[in-house]
Amino acid sequence: MHIHQQFYEDYHIGDSRTSLGRTITETDIVLHAGQTGDFFPHHMDAEWCQTQPFGKRIAHGTLIFSVAIGQTATQINPEAFSKGYDRLRFIKPVFIGDTIHTKVTITEAAQDKKPGYGKIVEHVEVFNQHNILVMVCDHILLARQKTITSNS
Amino acid sequence: MHIHQQFYEDYHIGDSRTSLGRTITETDIVLHAGQTGDFFPHHMDAEWCQTQPFGKRIAHGTLIFSVAIGQTATQINPEAFSKGYDRLRFIKPVFIGDTIHTKVTITEAAQDKKPGYGKIVEHVEVFNQHNILVMVCDHILLARQKTITSNS
Amino acid sequence: MHIHQQFYEDYHIGDSRTSLGRTITETDIVLHAGQTGDFFPHHMDAEWCQTQPFGKRIAHGTLIFSVAIGQTATQINPEAFSKGYDRLRFIKPVFIGDTIHTKVTITEAAQDKKPGYGKIVEHVEVFNQHNILVMVCDHILLARQKTITSNS
Amino acid sequence: MHIHQQFYEDYHIGDSRTSLGRTITETDIVLHAGQTGDFFPHHMDAEWCQTQPFGKRIAHGTLIFSVAIGQTATQINPEAFSKGYDRLRFIKPVFIGDTIHTKVTITEAAQDKKPGYGKIVEHVEVFNQHNILVMVCDHILLARQKTITSNS
Amino acid sequence: MHIHQQFYEDYHIGDSRTSLGRTITETDIVLHAGQTGDFFPHHMDAEWCQTQPFGKRIAHGTLIFSVAIGQTATQINPEAFSKGYDRLRFIKPVFIGDTIHTKVTITEAAQDKKPGYGKIVEHVEVFNQHNILVMVCDHILLARQKTITSNS
Amino acid sequence: MHIHQQFYEDYHIGDSRTSLGRTITETDIVLHAGQTGDFFPHHMDAEWCQTQPFGKRIAHGTLIFSVAIGQTATQINPEAFSKGYDRLRFIKPVFIGDTIHTKVTITEAAQDKKPGYGKIVEHVEVFNQHNILVMVCDHILLARQKTITSNS
Repeated sequence: MHIHQQFYEDYHIGDSRTSLGRTITETDIVLHAGQTGDFFPHHMDAEWCQTQPFGKRIAHGTLIFSVAIGQTATQINPEAFSKGYDRLRFIKPVFIGDTIHTKVTITEAAQDKKPGYGKIVEHVEVFNQHNILVMVCDHILLARQKTITSNS
Repeated sequence: MHIHQQFYEDYHIGDSRTSLGRTITETDIVLHAGQTGDFFPHHMDAEWCQTQPFGKRIAHGTLIFSVAIGQTATQINPEAFSKGYDRLRFIKPVFIGDTIHTKVTITEAAQDKKPGYGKIVEHVEVFNQHNILVMVCDHILLARQKTITSNS
Repeated sequence: MHIHQQFYEDYHIGDSRTSLGRTITETDIVLHAGQTGDFFPHHMDAEWCQTQPFGKRIAHGTLIFSVAIGQTATQINPEAFSKGYDRLRFIKPVFIGDTIHTKVTITEAAQDKKPGYGKIVEHVEVFNQHNILVMVCDHILLARQKTITSNS
Repeated sequence: MHIHQQFYEDYHIGDSRTSLGRTITETDIVLHAGQTGDFFPHHMDAEWCQTQPFGKRIAHGTLIFSVAIGQTATQINPEAFSKGYDRLRFIKPVFIGDTIHTKVTITEAAQDKKPGYGKIVEHVEVFNQHNILVMVCDHILLARQKTITSNS
Repeated sequence: MHIHQQFYEDYHIGDSRTSLGRTITETDIVLHAGQTGDFFPHHMDAEWCQTQPFGKRIAHGTLIFSVAIGQTATQINPEAFSKGYDRLRFIKPVFIGDTIHTKVTITEAAQDKKPGYGKIVEHVEVFNQHNILVMVCDHILLARQKTITSNS
Repeated sequence: MHIHQQFYEDYHIGDSRTSLGRTITETDIVLHAGQTGDFFPHHMDAEWCQTQPFGKRIAHGTLIFSVAIGQTATQINPEAFSKGYDRLRFIKPVFIGDTIHTKVTITEAAQDKKPGYGKIVEHVEVFNQHNILVMVCDHILLARQKTITSNS
C-alpha cells in the first residue's frame, strides 16, 4: 500500500493488473455474517445446504465483493475518487476453500461533466482457482485532469 | 430471519420496508479492514484524516454496502434469487458513530427473458441519523412466476 | 428482526417457535475463547482432547447458550423485559461441525407480584443435527398486562 | 490457567475467590452481536438508545454472563464437571466503559444422587466499577468424592 | 491470571514452567492477517502454497510469537517489567492444526545497571505436538531487588 | 502487496522505507487479547489503569510488534527469507488512539555462513504521532546472492 499520483491522462484503456490469490475460509464467512447480521442458512447451516442444489455453504455476495475490492486496493491515488459500482453480478457461487484473485482492466476513459475531471471505468473480474469467473463489476472513478481542456 | 415464499406476482411496485438502525463503530471499520485487507489511511489513520477535507476516519464503501444489504436480509424467499446490483453510489461519507438504516422499495417488476421468471428491482437507500441519504443501489432479483405466462 | 407489541395476554401456554439451524464452527469457538478469555484445553487443544473420553474439542457452554438465545431473538417486544434464566443445563457436548437449532415453548404464564405485569416462562431447547437435545433452560420474562386486574 | 485437582471434600462453604477487572468495550458488544446474531437496537443503535429510559447502548445479557464465567475459569479441575446454572438474573444494565469483576463463593456442598459425587454450588456475583451488583447466578458442579461413603 | 509479587531474588536459574497446549487454527491465521494487514500468500493462499516447498499455509511468525508470549502470561508481577526480547528465531513452520505449547526457563539473573534492579532472562521455547522446537526467544525483564546491594 | 525479486546485492546499507500510519484502537487491543489470551489489566481494565503511573490502558507489546511488522510487509521477495528478530525493545507505551508508523533501514549486509546467501539486517523503528520512538528491533533475513562468490 503506497501513494501514487495518477491523473486522468495516466489511465489507458486496456491496462490491467491482477491481484494475488486468497483462499475464502469458513472464518471469512462467519466473520462476515457477524459483521452484516446475515445469518442466512445458505452461509451458516451446513446440514441444510446439503439438501440444496448447491450442496454446501456459499460465501455471501457482499463478502466476495468486499474481498475483491480490497484486493484491488493497492495504491492510494490522491487525484481520483470512487463514485461507485455498476453491473455487479454474482456469476458462480464461491465455496469454503475456494481461492479467488481479482483482475482490473481499464475499459473506459472519457471527459466527465464535472469540470476538470475524467471518468474512468475499471472492469473488475474475480476468478476462482479453476480460472472460472465468479463475479464481475464496473468500478467508476473520477480522476483529475492534468491539463484542463477548454470546453468552449 | 424466517422463510417466506414470495412469487413474482407477490412483488408490487411501490411496496417498501425499512430496517431498524445500526451505529457504525470504530470496531466495524477495524474488522472490515481486517476482512478485506484495505488498510487505507482514510479508514485507519486518524491523524492523517485530520489533515484531509473530510476531517475524520470514514467507513469503507464496501462496509456500508455490506451492512446495508445485511439489514435488508430479513426473510428467505425460496422462490427468488439475487442476480446482483446496479448503480451502487456512495453519496456521503459515513463516519464512526453515525447510525444508518436502510429502506428498500420495489421500483420495477417485469417478465424476464429466463422463462418462468420475473425480474424485480429493489431500490435500496441508506440514510444516516440526520436522514441524509448516504448510499443507494438497485438490487436485481429474479422471482419465479406463480402462473407461467405463455410467450407465444 | 422487527418490533412486535405483545402483552401478557398474548402469550399462550403451549405456543412454540423454532429457529433455523446454524453450524457451530471452529471459528465460533476461537472467537468465543477470545471474547471470554476461556482458553481451556477442552476447547482449544485438539491433541489433548484426543486423549479424553469426549475425543475432540467441544464448544464452550456459554457459546451454545449465547448462540441459542441469539437464535430466539427475532422480534423486539416493547411490552416485555427479560429477568433472567433458570435451570440452564448442558446435556450433551456440541462439537465443531454440529448444527444446532432452538425451540422455544411457552410453559408458564401467571400474574406477577410486580403490579400490572405477568410472568412468562419460555422453555428453551437446543437440538443438534441428530435432533438430540444438547441444552435446555427456562427464560423468565415479565410482560405488561393489557388490562390491569385489580388485586383487591 | 493451570490444572488443579480438587475433590468434593476440598470445597468448603464460604470459600470465595475474586477475579481481576475487565472493561466492557464497544468492541465486545459488536463482537457479541456478531457471534450471536442479536443486533437488537438496545445494543447496536446509539441514536435509538438515547430515546429510551436507559439512555445508551447496553451489553447483551449473554455477553456479561459469558465474560463473567470466563473470568472464573482460572483452574482446570479434572475431578469435577459443570452441570449448568440456576437463578441467572440480570440486575442492572452494563454500559460501554463499565468495568466488571466476578466473585465466586461456595454456598452449597452436599452428597449427590450420582454415586461417588458431591454437588457443589458456586454463587457467582458480577459487580461493576461502583461495586454495584449487576448479575448473579448459581453454578452447579459435581465433584468426585475422595472417599466413597457407603450409602447403606 | 493472578497477581504474584516476585522480586529479583525470587528468580532462580534453571526454574522453568510449561504452558498447556493450544491448537493453531485457520481462524487464528485469518484473524492475525486481519490484525496486521499481512495477507501474504504464504498464509492466505492455499492453492499457491501447494506449489511451494512447504506445501500448505503457514502461520505468521508474529502470530506464533504473540500466542506463545500470551501462553506465558499467567501471573502479574508488580515487581518486574518487560524490556523486550532477544534472539527471536523461527525454527520450523507452524501449520494449521498444529498444537503448540511454550516452556519458559530462567537462564540468567544478574544485577542491572539500573540501581535496585536485577536483569532476568527467560528463555522461551515453543514446541509443536511432535515436541519439535518451532520458535525460541529470550525475554528480558527487570525485577526489583528485595535488598538493595550497595554498589560501593 | 506484490512480488519483487531482490537479491543480496540489491540491498544497500542506508536504504530505508517508511510505512503509512495506523491508529491503534481499543478494538485492536480487545482483538489481540482475544488472539493471545493475555487479558492482563494493563490492557483490559480501564479503572485499574487509572490507579497506575501510566494512567490508561496500554497496547500489548506483541500487538505493536505484530502491527509494525505487518506495516513493513509490502512486497514479497522470493529470493529472501526471514530468520528472526534481535534486540526487540518496547521503549514507550502505546495508548488507545495513538497512531504509529514504521521505518525500516538496511543497517547490515554481509556474506552469511550459509553458502550462496548474504545476511541482511533491517533496523525497524516504530514512531507514534509525536514522532517519538516507541519500539525498535532488528529484522534478520537471508537473501540469495546473484553471483556466488568463491570462498577459496
